[in-house]
Amino acid sequence: MAIAEITVIPVGTASTSLSAYVAGLHAYLDEEQKAGSIAFEMTAMSTIIEGELDELFRVIRGMHELPFGAGAQRVCTSVKFDDRRDKRGSIRQKLESVAKRLDTLP
Amino acid sequence: MAIAEITVIPVGTASTSLSAYVAGLHAYLDEEQKAGSIAFEMTAMSTIIEGELDELFRVIRGMHELPFGAGAQRVCTSVKFDDRRDKRGSIRQKLESVAKRLDTLP
Amino acid sequence: MAIAEITVIPVGTASTSLSAYVAGLHAYLDEEQKAGSIAFEMTAMSTIIEGELDELFRVIRGMHELPFGAGAQRVCTSVKFDDRRDKRGSIRQKLESVAKRLDTLP
Amino acid sequence: MAIAEITVIPVGTASTSLSAYVAGLHAYLDEEQKAGSIAFEMTAMSTIIEGELDELFRVIRGMHELPFGAGAQRVCTSVKFDDRRDKRGSIRQKLESVAKRLDTLP
Repeated sequence: MAIAEITVIPVGTASTSLSAYVAGLHAYLDEEQKAGSIAFEMTAMSTIIEGELDELFRVIRGMHELPFGAGAQRVCTSVKFDDRRDKRGSIRQKLESVAKRLDTLP
Repeated sequence: MAIAEITVIPVGTASTSLSAYVAGLHAYLDEEQKAGSIAFEMTAMSTIIEGELDELFRVIRGMHELPFGAGAQRVCTSVKFDDRRDKRGSIRQKLESVAKRLDTLP
Repeated sequence: MAIAEITVIPVGTASTSLSAYVAGLHAYLDEEQKAGSIAFEMTAMSTIIEGELDELFRVIRGMHELPFGAGAQRVCTSVKFDDRRDKRGSIRQKLESVAKRLDTLP
Repeated sequence: MAIAEITVIPVGTASTSLSAYVAGLHAYLDEEQKAGSIAFEMTAMSTIIEGELDELFRVIRGMHELPFGAGAQRVCTSVKFDDRRDKRGSIRQKLESVAKRLDTLP
């Protein structure tokens, strides 16, 4: 299991708003999540997905393609992977790990 | 008002765990938030902060410095700014804008 | 053809130096380049590769795996894709496009 | 001395071409370099600058502002800092360090 954070920006869209693209993204990820390949959550800046690394690559490839399907001619996608093989690194576990540290602060 | 997403990675730390650094980060951001300069939230992958652009730069400068204070000798920090001047672009507004789109999906 | 910029950071390496990892990366990319699947160049901060999008995904998957093969237990990889479908977007073309603009500056 | 890699993307520009923005960026950086505050180089994907950390922050703040001056209403800027305090980490030194490793490969 690994975690990835993805931002997809269509370039040359005329409008400064990207929320239409984000809605399509959400529908796509929802379907993948229901199929059990990944779990995802959206933040104000990115989408975070977790799953097997090969699944992450496949889903990110799909996310990157979406704006082209909606008419974009250029897409800049940035991805950050956090892949930890010494322990299970889920979204939940990472947040709990930090929360635990905070509890022990003086 | 702009939004920034920040990841700070100390390099050469011996341990694969970064949660001790994250706890210090949280304390720092909490203080800045109480002082009213920024608002922040932590995700599994990054920290998201919002505020005036100059305040964001100042706080990011501080975030980047923290691991050195804790003994790190090399720090890789990545930042993504989303700065929109045609309308107020807060974390809440961005999430609401997407949620609204989702409601109108067939 | 698309272009991607990749940075691979092993976490928990004890040493602040990453140049041993970079050398292994270079050998891997050299082989891929000789096989004709991608072209690459290294900068002080990243590796830039160009090729068909599916080849880029495959090669990035391989780049991300390398530090694990060399003993790392956690790897943070960041990738930026620039994918332009209205015209050929090679590394050379992008640099030429900027150079041309600079020539016409007053 | 630290190194930073910066990509500035104006959103909602109508055109897929960003080379006009890049030319303005080059002129700005050229002036900063002549003033001695930073050194820079452009790659196909980013701009790399090196200098004192506070100078990097100031120059990045300026780079981010440029597209607004040219009419953009939304700008997404991504930055990666590599800041090493145990040894001098210039662009040249990093490339030499890798090259040296490559020479010693079997």
